[in-house]
Amino acid sequence: MEQTWLYVSIAASLVSIAVAIYLYYWVKRQTPGTEKAQEVASWIREGAQTYLKRLYVALTIVAVILGFIIAVVFSFDLVDIASGDVDITPGNGIKMAVAFIAGAVCSAVAGYMGMSIAVEANVRTATAANESLNKAFRLSFYAGSVMGLAMVGLAVMGMSIIFLLTSSADIVLGFSFGASALALLAKAGGGIYTKTADIAADLVGKVEVGIPEDDPRNPAVVADNVGDNVGDVAGMGADIFDSYVASTVAVMLLAASSTTLDSKYIVLPLILCTLGIGASLLGIQFVRVGKNGKPGPALNFGTIITTIFFSAMVTALVLLGDINIGVLWATLTGLITGVIIGFTSDYFTSEAQKPVHETARVSDSGAAINIIMGFSYGLVSIVPSVIGIAVATLLSYHFAQTSGLPGIYGIGVSAVGMLSISGMIVSADAYGPIVDNARGIAEMSGMDHEVIATTDTLDAAGNTAKAITKGFSISAAALTVLALFAAYAEVVTASGAEVNMSLRDPIVVAGVFLGAMTPPLFSALTMLSVTNNAFDMIEEVRGQFRERPGILAGTEQPDYATCVGMAAHGALTSLVLPAFLAVGLPLLIGFVLGPNALGGFLGGSIFTGVIFALLMANAGGLWDNAKKFIETGQFGGPGSDAHKAGVVGDTVGDPFKDTAGPSLNTLITVMSLVSSLFAPIIAAFHIF
Amino acid sequence: MEQTWLYVSIAASLVSIAVAIYLYYWVKRQTPGTEKAQEVASWIREGAQTYLKRLYVALTIVAVILGFIIAVVFSFDLVDIASGDVDITPGNGIKMAVAFIAGAVCSAVAGYMGMSIAVEANVRTATAANESLNKAFRLSFYAGSVMGLAMVGLAVMGMSIIFLLTSSADIVLGFSFGASALALLAKAGGGIYTKTADIAADLVGKVEVGIPEDDPRNPAVVADNVGDNVGDVAGMGADIFDSYVASTVAVMLLAASSTTLDSKYIVLPLILCTLGIGASLLGIQFVRVGKNGKPGPALNFGTIITTIFFSAMVTALVLLGDINIGVLWATLTGLITGVIIGFTSDYFTSEAQKPVHETARVSDSGAAINIIMGFSYGLVSIVPSVIGIAVATLLSYHFAQTSGLPGIYGIGVSAVGMLSISGMIVSADAYGPIVDNARGIAEMSGMDHEVIATTDTLDAAGNTAKAITKGFSISAAALTVLALFAAYAEVVTASGAEVNMSLRDPIVVAGVFLGAMTPPLFSALTMLSVTNNAFDMIEEVRGQFRERPGILAGTEQPDYATCVGMAAHGALTSLVLPAFLAVGLPLLIGFVLGPNALGGFLGGSIFTGVIFALLMANAGGLWDNAKKFIETGQFGGPGSDAHKAGVVGDTVGDPFKDTAGPSLNTLITVMSLVSSLFAPIIAAFHIF
Repeated sequence: MEQTWLYVSIAASLVSIAVAIYLYYWVKRQTPGTEKAQEVASWIREGAQTYLKRLYVALTIVAVILGFIIAVVFSFDLVDIASGDVDITPGNGIKMAVAFIAGAVCSAVAGYMGMSIAVEANVRTATAANESLNKAFRLSFYAGSVMGLAMVGLAVMGMSIIFLLTSSADIVLGFSFGASALALLAKAGGGIYTKTADIAADLVGKVEVGIPEDDPRNPAVVADNVGDNVGDVAGMGADIFDSYVASTVAVMLLAASSTTLDSKYIVLPLILCTLGIGASLLGIQFVRVGKNGKPGPALNFGTIITTIFFSAMVTALVLLGDINIGVLWATLTGLITGVIIGFTSDYFTSEAQKPVHETARVSDSGAAINIIMGFSYGLVSIVPSVIGIAVATLLSYHFAQTSGLPGIYGIGVSAVGMLSISGMIVSADAYGPIVDNARGIAEMSGMDHEVIATTDTLDAAGNTAKAITKGFSISAAALTVLALFAAYAEVVTASGAEVNMSLRDPIVVAGVFLGAMTPPLFSALTMLSVTNNAFDMIEEVRGQFRERPGILAGTEQPDYATCVGMAAHGALTSLVLPAFLAVGLPLLIGFVLGPNALGGFLGGSIFTGVIFALLMANAGGLWDNAKKFIETGQFGGPGSDAHKAGVVGDTVGDPFKDTAGPSLNTLITVMSLVSSLFAPIIAAFHIF
Repeated sequence: MEQTWLYVSIAASLVSIAVAIYLYYWVKRQTPGTEKAQEVASWIREGAQTYLKRLYVALTIVAVILGFIIAVVFSFDLVDIASGDVDITPGNGIKMAVAFIAGAVCSAVAGYMGMSIAVEANVRTATAANESLNKAFRLSFYAGSVMGLAMVGLAVMGMSIIFLLTSSADIVLGFSFGASALALLAKAGGGIYTKTADIAADLVGKVEVGIPEDDPRNPAVVADNVGDNVGDVAGMGADIFDSYVASTVAVMLLAASSTTLDSKYIVLPLILCTLGIGASLLGIQFVRVGKNGKPGPALNFGTIITTIFFSAMVTALVLLGDINIGVLWATLTGLITGVIIGFTSDYFTSEAQKPVHETARVSDSGAAINIIMGFSYGLVSIVPSVIGIAVATLLSYHFAQTSGLPGIYGIGVSAVGMLSISGMIVSADAYGPIVDNARGIAEMSGMDHEVIATTDTLDAAGNTAKAITKGFSISAAALTVLALFAAYAEVVTASGAEVNMSLRDPIVVAGVFLGAMTPPLFSALTMLSVTNNAFDMIEEVRGQFRERPGILAGTEQPDYATCVGMAAHGALTSLVLPAFLAVGLPLLIGFVLGPNALGGFLGGSIFTGVIFALLMANAGGLWDNAKKFIETGQFGGPGSDAHKAGVVGDTVGDPFKDTAGPSLNTLITVMSLVSSLFAPIIAAFHIF
């Protein structure tokens, strides 16, 4: 039966990819608009391609090196070497390396598809906004769906084929590690890129020179628009791809290492993903706005209906497929928690609620008060999500255990349950940067005020969707890494070593402390890259204004390409140290202090990783919306002291919410994966 | 022999208190200065007394309620009730309640002595600065020593007498809980008070109206100067008092619960404190500046010489007193770690180093970049201290174990080792706010520029001492709570329950998550109190300027008392929720989720507590000094755009470094103490 299920998964993934390709060409067939609009769009498209080309060159180098190391290391059965018994099986090493590279490639292809349609869809959305909001919404949402569907399709296809060929969850772990390694670079690199350009464009353009946002006279404006695509489309897609695959693999590993579970439970997470693909394909059909309807509720309705379809399908599967009922409860726990956390994190960032209002209100006493207030509410926003994660952990464990499954298997299934509907979630999320870009193109190519107002409406809905997705993806990542964490312990135990991971053991406590400091350090490194790179770009923009006065007069075109190149170069060179932290530090801790300390290290990184990710995402969103709230005319409106303070808060929040915060999910996933992958070797060789 | 040791401890503590009293009267005998200066000083003194009176009324209520609960709860042997065997011994309950109140009273008396001499010493220092820097330095440092010596004296006396009378480490735990409960209110309340006044005074005075710092026309200026005393003198003293006592008690508990240790190891931490008192009394004699010498190095020299004296004394004790050599190694590990962490945390906040320079350099691109940079360096500053704590934990455990002591006893001794020299550390630290106030009085009473310059030099040294003390006190608190954490596990085990505290157990993971979110939440609550209270006070100050134009013209005296009263009232009413978090949340977690989850909770709160405390203390210090660096004429100097950005950073840093950050030590200590105190009851009664 498992074989059949795998074929079904592959078939579903092919359907998903096919729909993605169909939508890709459908979007491309739409009117690309006026010549001026097309010219502006071409700058963004070329800038995005420049960056992606450089990123993929860097990734290829990293993938080849890591792939080679993996091929060599996994050719030896190192656990046997430790006991004096050398046993070389190059086949294993090559399989693992191929899976690793396949993971990286699948993630890259999904990101590439998403981005290349995003840079076509932006100008078409702006043009469609000329006709009707409805048409523009449909176009941009379908463009977003290209990435959502390509991503889940490629992920499920990759994992199913590998498992069909090798029957080994360990090899699928290699695939997951490949996807995560790519995600780390794409997400952190994209995050640094986008905020470097955004901050530089804002600080010189809006603050120093006083020209509006997206003004074509600003040399950094194209880099800023490119940044939306590389950071929010490609980066975010890679991020969810990574959690999606990692949660599935964690459950496969937990089932494979269990002595009591039937082998169908190894394939089960793939089936859940398959059902999720089906539910997303259905749900996407329901995302429509009526005439002059609201795009925000349309997106939310899509998410809710997808959740309902998926729940029904899982119920049918459990009842008809002879599956333990605990799977249903764990899935539902994950889904409900995800939806609740997503919507509650909206509370802290929504313009209609107290935290944003209060922050906007105190802003006329200056930027400092705005910062303190926003930061404090960001800290408070941690609380409901953390309680949600703790409750989901306990409930899914409890439900699984009382139904006769291993409790930790339940935690893993709840993560998979949350992430199964990623097809829909990513579609709604990728819509955001497309309409944001459409707004930029409308402004830069001098379209009517009405068109700009329509794109503004679309954009506001995108921001809400983004806030919800972030809450969702952080919670899902937390449950995923908890499942990976459990899988790590199982892998170490399976290789014959003892892991108690007790907080009464000082080496575990030392490990937790070291793990807990890693996410803050990683955040600091990426944010320092943003400020340093932005500082360089500010100098460049000031230089262009100074040396070529024609630019500000509007008679001369600024040199966009230099800024685009600077952002790309800066982002990629800044990744070296963070990438070392993610891959090297767990191995260092493991080989020096042993598997117990490494377990503590992973635990510590999960705790602070989740906390800092929530803090940064929510505080950043809050500052952004407090500024926007003031811009609607509240507390003095645009140009007032309150507004100036709001702009400072928004700028501080930029690297919080778009650089440091979102990369933390990927960081903790990569660290957990690399630890599980090397766990048997670490268990055999370590200094203390 | 233990008896003799206790008598020696009591004798040493009496000497310490006697010297403190002698210095108190010595300082009071110095010239109080001109009438104008005395008038200004009297405003501050009266404001401080107003606050203290209200604080002690609030504390008395809290102490009576908690004392009553403790008396009742500990009169029942609840562990026996659980097994159906009711056994009432009111004596235990009363002893525990008396110890609790004694702890609160001793801490309050030390804080009161420190503060009442600080508000006398400030004006005398300003007057002495008229004569020579040397004289002013000696006066202010001796005034600081009043609190340093009173504090260690009262602590050692209290603990020694209680143990002499009851021979029970558990009852000493009650004393420690009393001291910590007071510290939490004094520290958090003082922190809210001081920053409310500081921010309000700066934002209206310096930013809106453009009058200098400490200008007597500012209605909030007296509250600001009072704040330095209540926050930095009384609050900080209570904070170190609390760690000092808690670390000693933790070691006593660990020794008492050990089956292998000789009973002299229970008294040993008191002996270490006694030696520390001796070393501090000697070290204080060496704190002198030569003619026109530098006060900063003089303070640091005092710390180093005290450390050396203390190390020599411990070596002698171990060699002559038949004490396990592991005690020496653990003590030295703690001491060396404390000194190293103190000095390295200076790196991130010193004007002479890269982090402050870089932050100042980017400031001319605006406040947002300044904030991002300072926050990022604050995150990086966590790393060396956390590595130091992890290494100290492992080394002291290892040294103790290889010498035949229980490893956790070693961790506790290293904390006591660090804190034994608190007499000297607190003396150097309490010096800071005294000279800060002296500067304010010099300015407000219109003294010469030369006098103000002298007080500026004294003040700069105070800031360095403060940064070092903060690094030291956070590290010491971390080791203290780790020892308390171990003690908690021992107490639970002793009451017959199982505690594995394994991270493989989901209830422990849930506990860690909930614990980890508590310090950020606590920080947020205190900071929101500061912004809300400051916002109210800003309205008051603006109102006074508006309604009474004579104030700004200098012809009318502003109403200082209203601002003083507002700050005091605001600070005390803001404490209700944070205090509940500290005492109620651990009990809630324990009684609902059980002792394993509570163990995880404590662990989680320690990890993020230490990280947030370091982040906030260091980022705050960095922003402060970046602003000061710009004020020396760098990057545009005073009045430039860079300076404006620096002022925003400094204001954001104020509640970070003086409100939220320093209270976290006390928070995690209180949570650990309340858990240990109630551990036997929780082990017997819990829902899951």
